[in-house]
Amino acid sequence: MNTNGTNGTHRPAAHGTHAAAGRALVANWQTLQQVFIRPENEAVRATLVKYMEQILFGLHDFLRDHVGITEAKSLIKLSERFQDSLIHEHPRRKLAEVIQGIIEDLAPYAVNVASPYFVGHMTSAIPFFMVHLQTIVAALNQNLVKLETSKVFSIHERQVLAKLHRRIFRRSAGFYRHHIQHPESTLGCFVEDGTLANLTALWVARNRCFPPTEDFDGVESEGMAAALAAHNTRRAVVLVSRMGHYSLRKAGGVLGIGNRNVLAIDTDDGYRIDVTALQRVIRELTGAGSDTRVIAVVGIAGTTETGSVDDLTAIGDICRRHGIHFHVDAAWGGPTLMSERYAGLLKGIQTADSVTIDGHKQFYMPMGCGMVYFRDPRAMDAVAYHAAYVNRPGSVDLGIKSLVGSRAANSLILGGALDIMGAGGYAVLIDHGIETARIFAETIRTRSVFELITPPVLNIITYRICPPEWQRRLSSADKRTRRRLTSELNRINTAVQRLQREAGNSFVSRTTLVSPDGLKTVVLRAVIMNPMTDARILSAILDEQASIFEVWQAA
Amino acid sequence: MNTNGTNGTHRPAAHGTHAAAGRALVANWQTLQQVFIRPENEAVRATLVKYMEQILFGLHDFLRDHVGITEAKSLIKLSERFQDSLIHEHPRRKLAEVIQGIIEDLAPYAVNVASPYFVGHMTSAIPFFMVHLQTIVAALNQNLVKLETSKVFSIHERQVLAKLHRRIFRRSAGFYRHHIQHPESTLGCFVEDGTLANLTALWVARNRCFPPTEDFDGVESEGMAAALAAHNTRRAVVLVSRMGHYSLRKAGGVLGIGNRNVLAIDTDDGYRIDVTALQRVIRELTGAGSDTRVIAVVGIAGTTETGSVDDLTAIGDICRRHGIHFHVDAAWGGPTLMSERYAGLLKGIQTADSVTIDGHKQFYMPMGCGMVYFRDPRAMDAVAYHAAYVNRPGSVDLGIKSLVGSRAANSLILGGALDIMGAGGYAVLIDHGIETARIFAETIRTRSVFELITPPVLNIITYRICPPEWQRRLSSADKRTRRRLTSELNRINTAVQRLQREAGNSFVSRTTLVSPDGLKTVVLRAVIMNPMTDARILSAILDEQASIFEVWQAA
Repeated sequence: MNTNGTNGTHRPAAHGTHAAAGRALVANWQTLQQVFIRPENEAVRATLVKYMEQILFGLHDFLRDHVGITEAKSLIKLSERFQDSLIHEHPRRKLAEVIQGIIEDLAPYAVNVASPYFVGHMTSAIPFFMVHLQTIVAALNQNLVKLETSKVFSIHERQVLAKLHRRIFRRSAGFYRHHIQHPESTLGCFVEDGTLANLTALWVARNRCFPPTEDFDGVESEGMAAALAAHNTRRAVVLVSRMGHYSLRKAGGVLGIGNRNVLAIDTDDGYRIDVTALQRVIRELTGAGSDTRVIAVVGIAGTTETGSVDDLTAIGDICRRHGIHFHVDAAWGGPTLMSERYAGLLKGIQTADSVTIDGHKQFYMPMGCGMVYFRDPRAMDAVAYHAAYVNRPGSVDLGIKSLVGSRAANSLILGGALDIMGAGGYAVLIDHGIETARIFAETIRTRSVFELITPPVLNIITYRICPPEWQRRLSSADKRTRRRLTSELNRINTAVQRLQREAGNSFVSRTTLVSPDGLKTVVLRAVIMNPMTDARILSAILDEQASIFEVWQAA
Repeated sequence: MNTNGTNGTHRPAAHGTHAAAGRALVANWQTLQQVFIRPENEAVRATLVKYMEQILFGLHDFLRDHVGITEAKSLIKLSERFQDSLIHEHPRRKLAEVIQGIIEDLAPYAVNVASPYFVGHMTSAIPFFMVHLQTIVAALNQNLVKLETSKVFSIHERQVLAKLHRRIFRRSAGFYRHHIQHPESTLGCFVEDGTLANLTALWVARNRCFPPTEDFDGVESEGMAAALAAHNTRRAVVLVSRMGHYSLRKAGGVLGIGNRNVLAIDTDDGYRIDVTALQRVIRELTGAGSDTRVIAVVGIAGTTETGSVDDLTAIGDICRRHGIHFHVDAAWGGPTLMSERYAGLLKGIQTADSVTIDGHKQFYMPMGCGMVYFRDPRAMDAVAYHAAYVNRPGSVDLGIKSLVGSRAANSLILGGALDIMGAGGYAVLIDHGIETARIFAETIRTRSVFELITPPVLNIITYRICPPEWQRRLSSADKRTRRRLTSELNRINTAVQRLQREAGNSFVSRTTLVSPDGLKTVVLRAVIMNPMTDARILSAILDEQASIFEVWQAA
């Protein structure tokens, strides 16, 4: 079909016959009402469906050709077209024109995250049915903050939460029978993203670390300063490896703990937390005469930069021994639990007190679906809030224990997806990502211009351009020379990544890793989650990088 | 058309011919891939469109008859059907069946927030085009955390933010020309809801109240305890009227300030903050030898319970004099600024330092669109975070200054809606709500069995059942008798509200107001935002309440 969207079935006439999209959309009261009522006649319905068709396929046709990250200059030029700060008094466009405008003026400058050549970030193609499920959520417009605006969807959400909880913590069937719909139990909650999931987990951990005592009403009520004083403590800290996501530092800042008190523990050569170092730090912090409390230790199941997985069993042991809250940030790696073959990579996750998982990452949901789960169904009691007009104590209103108030029924999307995909369907995706990443690592090893930096544990891989003569010089260089060479290589890799991004055919991200010897190394980072990304495509991406490097070198 | 959705055009065969919905959805790798790729042939496309048709109209047909809040017993019965905590290995349903299941098994037990008889909460019908716009957001699946996953949508979002900012703060055209696309300026940000918007505002206010000094790195870095010590302070507080939303107390708890330090200021007889009391409290707290800092004063533009609007001009003056951050919680009332006729009700809002507005309330967007705006485009510098793999300093990545990380392009929905509706279209809705609420108040005044408690300022009204003989007895009673009578009336109103809710024809919420003389009064609360809710419907709701009361009284 025609791909420019200017004719054919995918462009309903802007001047349709339906009031919801026709001439006089909002000019007066009568037409306004019509956009709110259920369209009763078939002609009106047909028009609304046409728009959906235009959305479903018109957008995709436009996204076909380019990955779509362009150079800074073009961004500045683009921004010159978005300078209008006035809300106009009268309607300016009808729905059909708005859709058309998005397809023609915005989509071409969007990022084609659905492209199999877009392997730079944790955002990817999503299955078609996800768009349908999201549409259902919008059409129903339930508000999960309370039963009175969600009813069955609150009950349904509890079931979805129990399913994930069981996959993570594997507690007994009886446990779930008791808690799945028990008004006082909270197995987890939905938030917008992993940042807020981590924040929620540390909020709960902070409050459980500084609970009410005889003459202290708890940190939630009295604040951090009073909490430290009441518990004879000078400082409260959170421990995580130096590969921890920046949302953890942010959570420390937000929660009044102070982000400098989110302490970075060294990692081993696999970018996993150094368990011995962790133990030593805990001993130093909490030894005799200590003035420090450890609110939580965070283990990572899939670091953002390298996909490494901490030794969760070991961290769990340490936390249990010291009575410290153990949080696992599995925003990325969590869905690995769906794969029989690779669930073992997250061994020990069931010993966590809380776990973050992002639905919009490897559950392939649309944006905006973070989740946090708690082993103890009463853990979230530490953050309960009530209000007179809603959320009365004893009700099952989900907003009682939740960072956020009003929110959509995203659980409906996840619940639907679990039915449609099965654990097995997700396993196929997970296995493909991990196994394709392994093949990619082998390919990199065979291509002399590249150096593999971190082999994949899950489905993230880092590497860099480092031709054989550089590798030779590096291996025999003293520390100062190594630093100089690394710095030059950093410049090369930064340039190649930028040029590839600007060419717009494919996208690999870059980040800076601090290697065990303290050198800051710029690496290229590939995240293999799109099922259409295969070895051939990844080779083509390497080819492009190699040839950009050649041209750059010659210049 | 047939309303049970079991035949006709709105039920595509569950066993369709398309892999995205057909027989072997996820059983193997080949079929799985097909749910990710763009459907290239017309038959497949037609099937996907059919599902959209089913969603758009099938759902609505099922929601036609009932408002849908039922008694607790039926909820328990309903919850017995959601007891499955297992994720099944194999796919259990195809998309068509999932949609059908939602229509048949869930939607009938949803709450029909779109009904004009549902006037109990701030969730209502949304225009049809909102569902389309939400679908576009899902189909594009951009992630606004960074340019590399959103590009033009980050730039577009800045334009939408500037439009709202200008409507609130009315700064000069030159101001917006300079800041609208300036990488270092942040006019506001999108969050999931008003709770997170208020949290963001107070987070910024807290950090600006305790900035870095010579030997102190700022509260974000060092935490609340160190901040108080460094600034020679014993306590930090936030002031808001006792009508403040509970999210403000929650924000105090989350931020380490302590929710008991969110102090409730008395209100006048219109449930507005008592400005004299506010001044007195500030003087007492910050006078000579003070050990307390006021982080922020919050003014409310539309209290949740009564829709009252604080005297924002007066609060603004006080805050400026004392150098205190002035936040306005306009989650509900903000869109009143779209109405030429009633924008004056929010007089003084332009003097705020920050303002919360909810898109999913009176901008009639789907759930999940809170916003917070800052007068000073550099205010959010106080909460900036960077990460190596993303959000490098100096970039325009929107995730640098934001509570949340990954998030959807909800600004696309608001931007589209502003084009389609114009300020004028929203004004029609706002004016209808306010004017219908006023008519409703008059109706209540003419019906002797009811007593108007708070006349509408915006479009929220509270009243109660209080027959003439009770009103007479109350007016001549001593305090003890008044308490007893009030308590009986509370019981009556609680019962009537519950019985009406359970009957399922209409829904009015209830809350408890503390009257100026300290009595806790249960009131019925109506929120008039659905344009289909008119005087006739509101009269019918009163009729139903009166007849429920009669039956209850006779029993």
